[in-house]
Amino acid sequence: MIKIGYLGPEGTFSEKAAQIWQNFLLGPHQMEGKESIPQLFRDLETKNLTQIVVPVENSIEGSVTVTQDYLISLQDVRVLGEISLSIEHYLVTNGTVPIREIAGVYSHPQALAQCHGYLEQHLKHAKLFQTASTAEAARIVSEAQEPVAAITSLDAAIKYNLTVLAEKIQDFDGNKTRFWALGQLDCPPPMAVGDSLIAKTSIVVALPYNRPGGLYEILKEFAEVSLDLTRIESRPTKKELGEYLFIIDFIGHLKEEAVIRAFAKLKDKGVMIKILGSFPLIS
Amino acid sequence: MIKIGYLGPEGTFSEKAAQIWQNFLLGPHQMEGKESIPQLFRDLETKNLTQIVVPVENSIEGSVTVTQDYLISLQDVRVLGEISLSIEHYLVTNGTVPIREIAGVYSHPQALAQCHGYLEQHLKHAKLFQTASTAEAARIVSEAQEPVAAITSLDAAIKYNLTVLAEKIQDFDGNKTRFWALGQLDCPPPMAVGDSLIAKTSIVVALPYNRPGGLYEILKEFAEVSLDLTRIESRPTKKELGEYLFIIDFIGHLKEEAVIRAFAKLKDKGVMIKILGSFPLIS
Repeated sequence: MIKIGYLGPEGTFSEKAAQIWQNFLLGPHQMEGKESIPQLFRDLETKNLTQIVVPVENSIEGSVTVTQDYLISLQDVRVLGEISLSIEHYLVTNGTVPIREIAGVYSHPQALAQCHGYLEQHLKHAKLFQTASTAEAARIVSEAQEPVAAITSLDAAIKYNLTVLAEKIQDFDGNKTRFWALGQLDCPPPMAVGDSLIAKTSIVVALPYNRPGGLYEILKEFAEVSLDLTRIESRPTKKELGEYLFIIDFIGHLKEEAVIRAFAKLKDKGVMIKILGSFPLIS
Repeated sequence: MIKIGYLGPEGTFSEKAAQIWQNFLLGPHQMEGKESIPQLFRDLETKNLTQIVVPVENSIEGSVTVTQDYLISLQDVRVLGEISLSIEHYLVTNGTVPIREIAGVYSHPQALAQCHGYLEQHLKHAKLFQTASTAEAARIVSEAQEPVAAITSLDAAIKYNLTVLAEKIQDFDGNKTRFWALGQLDCPPPMAVGDSLIAKTSIVVALPYNRPGGLYEILKEFAEVSLDLTRIESRPTKKELGEYLFIIDFIGHLKEEAVIRAFAKLKDKGVMIKILGSFPLIS
């Protein structure tokens, strides 16, 4: 039985991403909501969970840097798939308070930021409070006695029996967030890998030296074989602030000729590469 | 009167960073704790606050991507200074519960991640719950009836009258988090700029084309004048996932010859540069 963990409670975007992901799995499986991203990684390590679905970019749930730091430090975890989700925000309240009387708005800070324009236009008088997740904001508002609102998903609004005051209030349409399905190293790849879906690879690289232009030397090898980098991020190493690792995502599979050539050149330069995985993109 | 905003409640690392920052300001000033990072940016925009102090990297308070996204989208904000803070985590509880009986641990997910080793060794039996801040975790535990603990700062432990079960439980010493002091564009620089402190510059760059090797072309210009890049991060543009802006920090001041030369070359290539500021490093 495959056990898939996601960040609960019910009604989170993480749950939705996990539901999409399970369609790509063979065999029986079940889903479990957990209390935090650190708890998910712990359960994956101890094999209480077979796979976990966690946010990796532009997220409104949990801290994305947490996911990155676990991926850098844990040994036997690999990326099995990427799930891209469109994000729509709803302004909801408990009962029948009109928007002009709302005194406070609760949500994850990323969701508040994504609705900046709407809040400035319609809720300039309300205070903004940050919560650990958008589902948590819905829960708080469902129990509140004061005239307050939450920015949350439609699923969470329904779950907590809240009134929708305004829908799709994010500043930009096409707002997406990316999730990764992670599993143990010995976990079989899902059925879709290598088929019609686009493959992406994610790696962590560490330089053998700390000097200006170090990253430039790395990117040069990717540019020379025309690999399309979709993300690059520096993360401080645990030793001292200012020493960096880089997380690099690119379109292409580890087995492709161009990738093999670039990696060989990097190894010649003494660059250490940790492979997080080659995996399909699902959206 | 200079009004400095920070992420409250009292006892956060943001408050501590703001306290350090105020030593560098001339003239009278006061500090105000706010409910969220979005509220801080809103108060800065409307000039309710003169300056704000917010986390920018390796943060355990609030979402760092939120800070980055506001900096990218707001027009008239500039970085006045960077404050680097050593982070020490304390395991605290309400009353006299021994560690072996703790059933749950509350903290910001980044703090839980930073204490991964300790939690695996001593609290494998406890569930991990994530909160919006470490100070919020202390507040929850101070009101809890169950045998639970928080990972929080010593200041927050004292404020909520909690018992320290273990001190300095982070996996790595020298764990630092960076904060930026931000002000309106017309805000005078603090007294220390250009003096004995090291200057750093932060910029946002956008490519005129979306092709493999684009970032490589940018870094080439920095490498050629030997500028030391201290951070590079890609952020998706709001339009569509996969189109990127880059945030680049480097050691050096905008007025330095090497910086002027690199910027001129980049502009020739059609690269758009938004300057977030040249500012002193305080640690």
